Amino acid sequence: MLALVFDGTAALRTDYPRPRAAAGEAVVAVTVAGVCSTDLEILKGYMGFSGVIGHEFVGRVAEGPGEWLGRRVVGEINCPCGRCGLCRDGLGNHCPGRTVVGIAGRDGVFAEHVALPVANLYEVPPAVDDDRAVFVEPLAAAFQVLEQVDVGGRAVAVLGDGRLGQLVARVLAGAAGRLLLVGRHEAKLRLAARQGIETCPGEAFQPAGQFDVVVDATGRADGFALAMEAVRPRGTIVLKSTVAGVGGPNLSPLVINEVTVVGSRCGPFRRALRALQAGQVEVASLITARFGLSDGLAALEAARSGGNVKVLIDVGS
Amino acid sequence: MLALVFDGTAALRTDYPRPRAAAGEAVVAVTVAGVCSTDLEILKGYMGFSGVIGHEFVGRVAEGPGEWLGRRVVGEINCPCGRCGLCRDGLGNHCPGRTVVGIAGRDGVFAEHVALPVANLYEVPPAVDDDRAVFVEPLAAAFQVLEQVDVGGRAVAVLGDGRLGQLVARVLAGAAGRLLLVGRHEAKLRLAARQGIETCPGEAFQPAGQFDVVVDATGRADGFALAMEAVRPRGTIVLKSTVAGVGGPNLSPLVINEVTVVGSRCGPFRRALRALQAGQVEVASLITARFGLSDGLAALEAARSGGNVKVLIDVGS
Repeated sequence: MLALVFDGTAALRTDYPRPRAAAGEAVVAVTVAGVCSTDLEILKGYMGFSGVIGHEFVGRVAEGPGEWLGRRVVGEINCPCGRCGLCRDGLGNHCPGRTVVGIAGRDGVFAEHVALPVANLYEVPPAVDDDRAVFVEPLAAAFQVLEQVDVGGRAVAVLGDGRLGQLVARVLAGAAGRLLLVGRHEAKLRLAARQGIETCPGEAFQPAGQFDVVVDATGRADGFALAMEAVRPRGTIVLKSTVAGVGGPNLSPLVINEVTVVGSRCGPFRRALRALQAGQVEVASLITARFGLSDGLAALEAARSGGNVKVLIDVGS
Repeated sequence: MLALVFDGTAALRTDYPRPRAAAGEAVVAVTVAGVCSTDLEILKGYMGFSGVIGHEFVGRVAEGPGEWLGRRVVGEINCPCGRCGLCRDGLGNHCPGRTVVGIAGRDGVFAEHVALPVANLYEVPPAVDDDRAVFVEPLAAAFQVLEQVDVGGRAVAVLGDGRLGQLVARVLAGAAGRLLLVGRHEAKLRLAARQGIETCPGEAFQPAGQFDVVVDATGRADGFALAMEAVRPRGTIVLKSTVAGVGGPNLSPLVINEVTVVGSRCGPFRRALRALQAGQVEVASLITARFGLSDGLAALEAARSGGNVKVLIDVGS
């Protein structure tokens, strides 16, 4: 099958073996896939991954249990062992033996087919089209902030106007007392402003401990230092960036200001699906480029450029 | 009066002007003072402070409102403005206009007399002698961990066997399900072991995400990286170290493991006083050296050496 494979370099392969469903698994024919910053980090060696990259997708079940065949689905990306202490504690997303679709020990979705556990699948309601459904995984990661931190009535700053920052801003805007999106890209800030979100260019932003909650979605090593300047004493920083950066900030302000830092990663798929179904979160305007899978390398290149927000890969139909 | 003064270098002065009580203030005749790591950081330029150093003390009120005269007291070190937004929100300890005894904008306690707001004073009950009372400020900082994090029944590691690590371990040992103190100094670990605390030398410690809560009291820049290795997914790191370090750790493990970091600084004096009065926390064995104020420079030197835990300065009687 056609697949975008990384094994030190990224290459389009036409002869990649089609996956087969192991026990408890289904094979999904991918319809649309999304490019995420993590994919770009993997191309730099993050996680030491090799195999088919990509983990944001919507598709149709092509092989697996009869009741799932033909259904349109999205899927969680963590595949836990189900037996260890963390799995038994309901923390399967942190299972040390887990595989992760397109990230760790398991082929991903920039391919015509992908295998994943049936337990990971969510049927997509008809009201959510493919171009919205492909946002469920990153949108769930944005909703995870609401599961971890109470932003009700509070002043919130989101640092970073990229893919994840845009979604986090959209999700929090309805819940926070005040929300400010800080970013470096005029066009991306305009996208958010069109959704009624208050924005501020990075060069005009004056951090002065004025925010109750600061979400670092910059994807840069210096984002955390900026978050420490912007958060009030006893406030909360939500760390959404996984940066393989060297060095890092002086952490003393966390102690002096008694700040709480909350690491935040994957999130609740059901909540994301419900929000898309109800039209609570607008995502279509975030799609700034799309490519066929045979142009997958160009899709990665486009996602790397500062000008794009979400780049989609059309795989099937 | 006699005072240990820092203005770029530390020097003993015999002619330092005795403080006078401003409105709402008292002057305390210092009996015993304790040397803290923050004092040593100030000697390196931390906070850009100049004046009398030192902030841990017990003494008797020598000047001030009649009802306080002659009372034996300890005192909170933050002196807030009382008028700003943070003060009105009950966060006076974080008032941007605050002075801090011996740390920022206000003379400290390595002197025969010190002035501070009457609102900062706590009378010491007779059951708590001077050598215990001088521990109230750092012990309160240790109790702050219990105010911020629920350690009940949980596995807790305290990293650092110095002054603060010792107190945090003593405070948490009674509340946690399991407590392990990790340190580099055999003699200091023995001090804790004598209080029934489980200890582990740093070179034998194998961090593997096995602790629900990890307190970083190392005072070293690499302590935070070690804490990230030792804390379990969705666990809590309590950051007690203020290190003016350059560089720092890669923060990605916080995101991947969805860890919460809680910055922690000053704490509840009343709770510390009650614990000393009830004999709940043993502190006398932590006193490893004491000097007269005229040997104050030697006291600082002793506190800097790895061999000492708490160094006291006897000022008056």
